Amino acid sequence: MKVLVLGGDGFCGWPASLHLSDRGDAVTIVDNFSRRRIDEELGAQSLTPIRSMVERRAAWKELSGKQIDVVELDVAQDYQGLKELLDEVRPDAIVHYAEQRAAPYSMKSAKHKRYTIDNNVNATHNVLCAIVDSGQDIHLVHLGTMGVYGYGTAGMAIPEGYLEVRIPVTTDAVVETEILYPTNPGSIYHMTKVLDQSMFAYYAKNDELRITDLHQGIVWGTNTIQTNLDERLINRFDYDGDYGTVLNRFLMQAAVGYPLTVHGTGGQTRAFIHIQDMVRCVAIALDNPPQVGERVKIFNQMTETHRVRDLANLVASITGASVEMVPDPRKEAQENELLVNNDNFLGLGLEPITLNEGLLREINETAAKYADRADHSRIPARSVWTAAQQAGVPASVEDH
Amino acid sequence: MKVLVLGGDGFCGWPASLHLSDRGDAVTIVDNFSRRRIDEELGAQSLTPIRSMVERRAAWKELSGKQIDVVELDVAQDYQGLKELLDEVRPDAIVHYAEQRAAPYSMKSAKHKRYTIDNNVNATHNVLCAIVDSGQDIHLVHLGTMGVYGYGTAGMAIPEGYLEVRIPVTTDAVVETEILYPTNPGSIYHMTKVLDQSMFAYYAKNDELRITDLHQGIVWGTNTIQTNLDERLINRFDYDGDYGTVLNRFLMQAAVGYPLTVHGTGGQTRAFIHIQDMVRCVAIALDNPPQVGERVKIFNQMTETHRVRDLANLVASITGASVEMVPDPRKEAQENELLVNNDNFLGLGLEPITLNEGLLREINETAAKYADRADHSRIPARSVWTAAQQAGVPASVEDH
Repeated sequence: MKVLVLGGDGFCGWPASLHLSDRGDAVTIVDNFSRRRIDEELGAQSLTPIRSMVERRAAWKELSGKQIDVVELDVAQDYQGLKELLDEVRPDAIVHYAEQRAAPYSMKSAKHKRYTIDNNVNATHNVLCAIVDSGQDIHLVHLGTMGVYGYGTAGMAIPEGYLEVRIPVTTDAVVETEILYPTNPGSIYHMTKVLDQSMFAYYAKNDELRITDLHQGIVWGTNTIQTNLDERLINRFDYDGDYGTVLNRFLMQAAVGYPLTVHGTGGQTRAFIHIQDMVRCVAIALDNPPQVGERVKIFNQMTETHRVRDLANLVASITGASVEMVPDPRKEAQENELLVNNDNFLGLGLEPITLNEGLLREINETAAKYADRADHSRIPARSVWTAAQQAGVPASVEDH
Repeated sequence: MKVLVLGGDGFCGWPASLHLSDRGDAVTIVDNFSRRRIDEELGAQSLTPIRSMVERRAAWKELSGKQIDVVELDVAQDYQGLKELLDEVRPDAIVHYAEQRAAPYSMKSAKHKRYTIDNNVNATHNVLCAIVDSGQDIHLVHLGTMGVYGYGTAGMAIPEGYLEVRIPVTTDAVVETEILYPTNPGSIYHMTKVLDQSMFAYYAKNDELRITDLHQGIVWGTNTIQTNLDERLINRFDYDGDYGTVLNRFLMQAAVGYPLTVHGTGGQTRAFIHIQDMVRCVAIALDNPPQVGERVKIFNQMTETHRVRDLANLVASITGASVEMVPDPRKEAQENELLVNNDNFLGLGLEPITLNEGLLREINETAAKYADRADHSRIPARSVWTAAQQAGVPASVEDH
């Protein structure tokens, strides 16, 4: 099928583009290369030596014989360009990664909060509006986050997007219905995915767009079958305090002999997925679109849940690294349970890569291999969630 | 108290500014005068001859001895200006009307959809972000809409913002909790108020901002005690297909001898409030803020519900006008029940103006008085909700 990958130069977008191209989809990457500019802003860079898009494309063509088209375009700003691109390519599907995706970056300052809101909301809305405007039947697959959900309650597994509830209408009568799972985002970034979700529900209802929203866990790992083919195809690996996700950060800290820094008590439980499984899930979602007129299809795109301190201890036990507890820069519950239902993807054939099999390989093949490229001063998380924390007072949360 | 009124030149903002000034609040109006420019874009104008802000201010000073400050500023675009204004004025409260507020206008074209999303989301987020950034404790009162709710079910009255639900966790265990009422907006405009609501919940949680969200019904009537004092203070009255709200449109159609145009079956039930009650409610909300750390306070700001065809028949019976059924430009249920709980405002002393007492006065004092200013070609609603309707096919809705 013909697929536009918005944000196809990024950490998830690039390996997804290669995976789809490899299986025979006609892929067009659309990107404004904002992620590379943010590296410059932060004085940080990928631990792995990622290449320019020109070099990436040429290497893929050379190795696979397959062509990936690339269009430089800001979907949040250039609506006309986006609309013309839809008319020209007439894609069967759009995979939408074109959002600012780091929670700490979204909390750095008023400027960063405002950029994240403005960019993410307008990017998503422009895509929805342009699909309607084009008159084409295009399936939209969006990368959302598990972070739109509040945490589960009383041992319940978080269902896939929709929650069955009973509403006591009168003292006698109770109505049963299904609603979008109530949201409780933990940062401005996560909140933008809540706003996205509301826009999807509206456009699926009013314009009968076909939309799939992938509520993704934290991605770990770096490379996939395709990005491993050649050093020129290597994927990015972020380890800085803003963009480095927790498990990848631990792996890199272990590789360079830096203590594994656990925020708060480390009792926060999170959902995880390996990057290879992420690209497989996107392909599965593309192959299983909702029907016209159907509500938004929501998948929980994760395979395991772990407590952060357990992950730190696991990585420490493999590598001999030390663990250090540091103040939590976020405003969040320090201890939470998290059970998640991911039956949709398992039912469609996903066979997850487990932490046990992938962790050691990841340390050896990526973190240790490029350890000499690390700038240790970029490792600590410096964004804090509230004004009080800026002044040194820890944030308290009664119930998250 | 010191109050900023964002959007203080508009249909609701202007009478609210006068009401607050009259009772002794120090009012600063902030407006970018976009509503006057939209009049030009649409080739429409207020039925009533509204004056420039310069003339309005001078007249109010002359009549009341009270000064209203006015700042021309676009809160969606000029964050720096907004922040400096907060530092300069140090308001106790902000009343936020600075959003594009017409559903049909928000549906006219891709450009109008995109403007409504971009303007409303960034205006609201800039205000929230600037309050945090200022370090001040400012109570934010926002004009929302009843249109964020899905309609009630099984005879239940829509509660004020929060819904009590039971979640079946296992076959035996049920958890009781209260959630934000599930949303079901009927247009891009209404959806922006859903997005606002998510941002309010987040900022109340993360930054402990004090926020009141007024879920308002359709406003009818034109003038208040203050705007009635002098012709130079007169409020706007919109009757065009985009900005004219249903009851005011009927009143004006009756006054000029135009049939009362009912969309679809007219079985849509809506919530209403008189403009005089609207300004009283805003004052009550300002006097009853939530505490720091409390969740968003939500009021249903409406006093009566009516079926649209019943309203048309009522106006026809008073005036002798005819009623004409026309195709519904919206995608909506043709018949719905609507029961609404408004105990919060009633409990705080609101004594509603009823349709029965106010309707005839409104026809005589406004619609008939300025009937010769009406441009009949502006009356029909021309925005449609879906591409199919553009092509002449009515929209069907299974359940709204």
